Amino acid sequence: MARGTASPEIEQLIQLLARLPGLGPRSARRAALDLVKKKEQLLQPLATALATARDTIVTCEACGNIDTVSPCTICRDETRDRTLICVVEEVGDLWALERAGVLQGLYHVLGGTLSPLDGIGPEDLTIGKLVERARDPKVVEILLALNATVEGQSTAHFISDQLADCGVAIYRLAHGVPVGGELDYLDDGTLAAAVKAKKMV
Amino acid sequence: MARGTASPEIEQLIQLLARLPGLGPRSARRAALDLVKKKEQLLQPLATALATARDTIVTCEACGNIDTVSPCTICRDETRDRTLICVVEEVGDLWALERAGVLQGLYHVLGGTLSPLDGIGPEDLTIGKLVERARDPKVVEILLALNATVEGQSTAHFISDQLADCGVAIYRLAHGVPVGGELDYLDDGTLAAAVKAKKMV
Ligand SMILES: [Zn+2]
Ligand SMILES: [Zn+2]
Repeated sequence: MARGTASPEIEQLIQLLARLPGLGPRSARRAALDLVKKKEQLLQPLATALATARDTIVTCEACGNIDTVSPCTICRDETRDRTLICVVEEVGDLWALERAGVLQGLYHVLGGTLSPLDGIGPEDLTIGKLVERARDPKVVEILLALNATVEGQSTAHFISDQLADCGVAIYRLAHGVPVGGELDYLDDGTLAAAVKAKKMV
Repeated sequence: MARGTASPEIEQLIQLLARLPGLGPRSARRAALDLVKKKEQLLQPLATALATARDTIVTCEACGNIDTVSPCTICRDETRDRTLICVVEEVGDLWALERAGVLQGLYHVLGGTLSPLDGIGPEDLTIGKLVERARDPKVVEILLALNATVEGQSTAHFISDQLADCGVAIYRLAHGVPVGGELDYLDDGTLAAAVKAKKMV
């Protein structure tokens, strides 16, 4: 053990934990200690869960959701409304809408927002695939459930231009979503209200 | 995928991540998503690091430190001052002192503090083993580096009583440590000052 450091194995664990969103260097150190202390109850199950996730989780080729099957369970679910596609930025937004239980249709995960300054253009998102899906005559409605941020709204604007000749009705979420807010931080009631009062673009 | 939930494999991962100190349910969900998104760069290395920690990390039979060898690297280090034993509550405190680089001696990790209300008595900590170590004629000085909390100080008081006839000089950290503060939260300078101005008990 070098002066001032734990063993390399633990240092490596701390470094990786510190890269998780929400954990800084100090809390990563506490988490590593806690893991080692609770070897049977926490470290072992977490190691197994990560290995399982690594070996089983795939991205749905249809909608971009993550699941253990592709197409994902939502895309396979015959009871869902195939005339509606709800477009979200990230999988976390899809989860938020599913938790709220307010969407009967399918989803489309963009994988982010347009950001010319960061070099993120339409080809870096799944916009081409969305246009393809929208051309399917079965699809009647596209709901753009993007974050109410500048990036989210300019991406929504770009997408509705792209979808203009696809023969679909394009909706956005109602302004129940606080301006500047992010979907994943909202309560179920606000999400439900925003879906219910959706406005045609 | 059940309504409102991710796949069982991801739910399991979220549940376990939420048990790490510093991560609540929401940040555990974000962390899980981030892990799945960064499979090669984060999920795979973290799974490996956890498996390595599980298979290699042991508790030092001499001092209670955690390392890949027992006795630990500190206990094996022949350049360290074997006349001094620094007593700490937890391994995290040992790490804090090592990071500050202010201790030339060995350590002794108690594994907590006395807490009669929680049913934690002397036999639940490594106090007996400490008394045994203190009886070694080579040991001249015991530094009680416990937290400046009520529990830490009453445990220190109990230990100095136990060590009374061991023929060692007993020290506590100087009152550079803020009253009510915990070692692991202090900066190196404060720790160094506290060690330097140590007071005889
Ligand atoms: Zn899907
Ligand atoms: Zn040791």
